[in-house]
Amino acid sequence: MTMPMLETYPAEINLDRAKLAATIDALIACAEACTACADACLSESSVAELTKCVRTNMDCADICGATARVVSRHTGYDANISRTLLEACVMACKSCGDECGSHAGMHEHCRICAEACRACEAACRDLLAAMG
Amino acid sequence: MTMPMLETYPAEINLDRAKLAATIDALIACAEACTACADACLSESSVAELTKCVRTNMDCADICGATARVVSRHTGYDANISRTLLEACVMACKSCGDECGSHAGMHEHCRICAEACRACEAACRDLLAAMG
Amino acid sequence: MTMPMLETYPAEINLDRAKLAATIDALIACAEACTACADACLSESSVAELTKCVRTNMDCADICGATARVVSRHTGYDANISRTLLEACVMACKSCGDECGSHAGMHEHCRICAEACRACEAACRDLLAAMG
Amino acid sequence: MTMPMLETYPAEINLDRAKLAATIDALIACAEACTACADACLSESSVAELTKCVRTNMDCADICGATARVVSRHTGYDANISRTLLEACVMACKSCGDECGSHAGMHEHCRICAEACRACEAACRDLLAAMG
Repeated sequence: MTMPMLETYPAEINLDRAKLAATIDALIACAEACTACADACLSESSVAELTKCVRTNMDCADICGATARVVSRHTGYDANISRTLLEACVMACKSCGDECGSHAGMHEHCRICAEACRACEAACRDLLAAMG
Repeated sequence: MTMPMLETYPAEINLDRAKLAATIDALIACAEACTACADACLSESSVAELTKCVRTNMDCADICGATARVVSRHTGYDANISRTLLEACVMACKSCGDECGSHAGMHEHCRICAEACRACEAACRDLLAAMG
Repeated sequence: MTMPMLETYPAEINLDRAKLAATIDALIACAEACTACADACLSESSVAELTKCVRTNMDCADICGATARVVSRHTGYDANISRTLLEACVMACKSCGDECGSHAGMHEHCRICAEACRACEAACRDLLAAMG
Repeated sequence: MTMPMLETYPAEINLDRAKLAATIDALIACAEACTACADACLSESSVAELTKCVRTNMDCADICGATARVVSRHTGYDANISRTLLEACVMACKSCGDECGSHAGMHEHCRICAEACRACEAACRDLLAAMG
């Protein structure tokens, strides 16, 4: 419902609404995938080798979740905050996508999570480029 | 990606995975709609009459967001926590759905948000029923 | 600053402000202790035996965090939401306090976290009693 | 309990533990002050003139909350994420401190919130400097 909600926004938004909606959806999907992947890692017998993955998952979930909320508010007055937060998000998604990607062959949940991270990283970069 | 992630979970889940995935997706969609609706209300010239709506939106967003994270972990050992949290969620969604619904004719964002709240309320009730 | 903030609140609050401030502070301290304890558990060589602890920690952190935000808003109109959420909090704190308490002799971070959980559980019960 | 928890951490932390604990405490206090200030603003009769304040409060609360969680995990492997997130936090605290500060003479809750924002901004800058 992200796009329908944005379409009804009663004021100006200084960004392409479709691009913003796509980014919000990618952030939300990534946060959920990371939360689920952390829990799945905790259920693996090899959990001792997956602690770095659990942590990057949790960091990425927290950062994507906060970023989704912040960019859902069209505060406008200080684009630098959104921009820096999106940059932190790009880094967290890159880091988590790499970590999960490195054992994607072993754990199917890591493979799917890596995909969500990469899609989110791309969406954040895209929105950053559109912000100029 | 909620359902694909759940399908790869490496341990038992004491719940129907499709029903759980549908609830998580409804919780996430509702949290996002409420965050966006609160911000849209703040942009209305009639904001002074919408403060109750802003607050129920924020409460509902926080409760749905936390519930999504908790039910995404398949901790199992204490279903009472998930159950009580889902009950709080049902109440928050009911309250926010009613509030947003009451001025759905005036504000399109409230109409969409009320829909998201009702869908989430129904999904939480459904999961609660399945938990027995 | 929780109490000074509550003292400046420009409208009525249907609760003892000192009791409410004490509960908010206990919720915040518990959320932080649980986040830190989950991470400390992930750094233990015996992490494979601590996965249940990591999960209860994360659930408790999420529930306490959301509850702190919700009771910091003085929505009033529907005390049932706050009440049910506080009940979920009591259960989560009890569960996490028991789990952390069970290996408090082994891990100092679990001992401190169990204390934070018990203090938070008591504060939530106290506020629930005051809500009638 | 932030410092006692950090003192029991079973692995190395590449940062001064007292400085890290002080920053986490400042982040948590700022998030709480901003959540409470947003709600107090919604209770003012002049709410229509305070919508920017409500929004900066909410952004600042979300960013500080996520940052507190991330820096409470001593992941270490990628300090760039923490650094960028702390930079977003500095900006959010600066923005919210300025906004709240601008009507501190009118609203006592804004005065206290501005203080919390400035203390948090200083703590984050201090930690950033220590990270090198």
